[in-house]
Amino acid sequence: MAVYTEVVDADLAAFLADYDLGRVLALKGIAEGVENSNFLLHVEAGYFILTLYEKRVDERNLPFFLGLMEHLAARGLNCPQPVRNRSGVALGRLAGRPAAIVTFLEGIWRNRPDAKRCAALGEALGKLHQAGSDFAGSRANALGLSAWPVLFDQVGARADDVCPGVAAMIEKELAFLEKTWPTDLPRGVIHADLFPDNVLFLGEKISGLIDFYFACTDHLAYDLAICLNAWCFEPDSSFNITKAMGLFNAYERIRALEAAEVEALPILVRGAALRFTLTRLVDWLNVPPGALVHPKDPLEYIRKLQFHQRIGSGRELGLLR
Amino acid sequence: MAVYTEVVDADLAAFLADYDLGRVLALKGIAEGVENSNFLLHVEAGYFILTLYEKRVDERNLPFFLGLMEHLAARGLNCPQPVRNRSGVALGRLAGRPAAIVTFLEGIWRNRPDAKRCAALGEALGKLHQAGSDFAGSRANALGLSAWPVLFDQVGARADDVCPGVAAMIEKELAFLEKTWPTDLPRGVIHADLFPDNVLFLGEKISGLIDFYFACTDHLAYDLAICLNAWCFEPDSSFNITKAMGLFNAYERIRALEAAEVEALPILVRGAALRFTLTRLVDWLNVPPGALVHPKDPLEYIRKLQFHQRIGSGRELGLLR
Repeated sequence: MAVYTEVVDADLAAFLADYDLGRVLALKGIAEGVENSNFLLHVEAGYFILTLYEKRVDERNLPFFLGLMEHLAARGLNCPQPVRNRSGVALGRLAGRPAAIVTFLEGIWRNRPDAKRCAALGEALGKLHQAGSDFAGSRANALGLSAWPVLFDQVGARADDVCPGVAAMIEKELAFLEKTWPTDLPRGVIHADLFPDNVLFLGEKISGLIDFYFACTDHLAYDLAICLNAWCFEPDSSFNITKAMGLFNAYERIRALEAAEVEALPILVRGAALRFTLTRLVDWLNVPPGALVHPKDPLEYIRKLQFHQRIGSGRELGLLR
Repeated sequence: MAVYTEVVDADLAAFLADYDLGRVLALKGIAEGVENSNFLLHVEAGYFILTLYEKRVDERNLPFFLGLMEHLAARGLNCPQPVRNRSGVALGRLAGRPAAIVTFLEGIWRNRPDAKRCAALGEALGKLHQAGSDFAGSRANALGLSAWPVLFDQVGARADDVCPGVAAMIEKELAFLEKTWPTDLPRGVIHADLFPDNVLFLGEKISGLIDFYFACTDHLAYDLAICLNAWCFEPDSSFNITKAMGLFNAYERIRALEAAEVEALPILVRGAALRFTLTRLVDWLNVPPGALVHPKDPLEYIRKLQFHQRIGSGRELGLLR
């Protein structure tokens, strides 16, 4: 949640002069997105989201993110659609920062999605992978396998401050995943951060997927592993296999998993759990003074990782094949 | 700017069940208001602001604030209008906190309002005082004269860390104001915090006044003094008498100042400058860890106070009477 940069009226008017959106009727900073400043922008043409990309976002990646959203929206996926200005450009500058306007999506996120909504997620994820299959852009996963040791170096023994013994556990896990991580699975565009707060619902139907700023090219089934971890555990850390079955079934109705993906699933969920364990540890142990963000609890993901370390097959995770 | 409390979908649905607003279409935390959590709430009935009142707000004051907004809106003033639920109640509870829904106002605030907009402010302030004149509620100014020594005690000699010599200057000023502060001026409901970010414009016209959570009963002319300080100084601390003249003239077209108010003005602007010097010093010197708020610079108000200490009459401030 953040507004790092204040937008003043004169700068906004100059920025919007390039767009066919009419007069500004309202601008409210919104508490959404950790990396960027986001505003609800009401103009005569309707409601939009104005995003200012802050320093932590690599500007060179913005054409990939915006191009992807445009590509997906053109294929009927409900995701924020970048608005091009009169010169046909979606990426501009405002208050000294790269900035873009995207469409505003209706819906609210569910903090405890039920099994029906997990199934809705599976279908949406399948459609996302399908719609992304002919996207020309590509972007390496900056938080993939090769980044994990780098993240761990930023934490090291301090991980034990969060939970004694965790540093050694992670070191072992890193070695295990480096040996076993699959290399030949179907690849494509993945969202890579499809947590409940990035999935908007109207009733039981998904009305939109948002926040594509971790999207990258990676194993498609890794996206499913991230979702399984984020959607199918209860607050008490118990695994809800009914939700997972719903997720997998709905996904496979859109895109059937290959045998290699089924086999790799227990590894992929461990990697997905480790990735969020590591980034949460880094954030937890490095809260900057005056931080606008309450870091998320790493323990949640440490527990998920420990759960997966005892799993032997996809069947135990609800993938009944 | 803040969202201190997360609102989960189930709690929101339960809260809204008491209202005739239709289905929730969207909810976005907004970065507005320092004391409370604010959300843009889109329901079938339209766009609203949902506010959760956090600990720093005294719950006993909420009926005054909500009642005042309702009173002013009923008299045609553009301010957030509390929405009553089916039982006719505007104040409810959500996520364990007092909560209210108010109407969403269009407009954007001006970070550097020009002379025309200062005049528009003067007119709006006059109308606010007029509309509030028959409001039955009253509330002592918790940040008035008697609170200033208490605020200063929280800072003490540390004020010199911000600017050497300031602690002694404030001590002298407190003694001066205690002796000279007027007691018999026309009183009524004042906004008490009508800074540019609480005044929304569409073009050159004011579309709304917001954030009534400092409103109280005090000298009406003190509100004018607060506005003069907040609107009529340039970023380089110079005083813009043209803006001040516009402010006073427009205000007096709605409500003429009495002779005692004219005479008291040089004292009132000193008090208004001291009040914001003190609260800014307290915030500046007591930034809590993990603060969501960047404190405002006390120096700006120290300079305004020093300017006013050299002023002998209302004429020097643009009040040409």
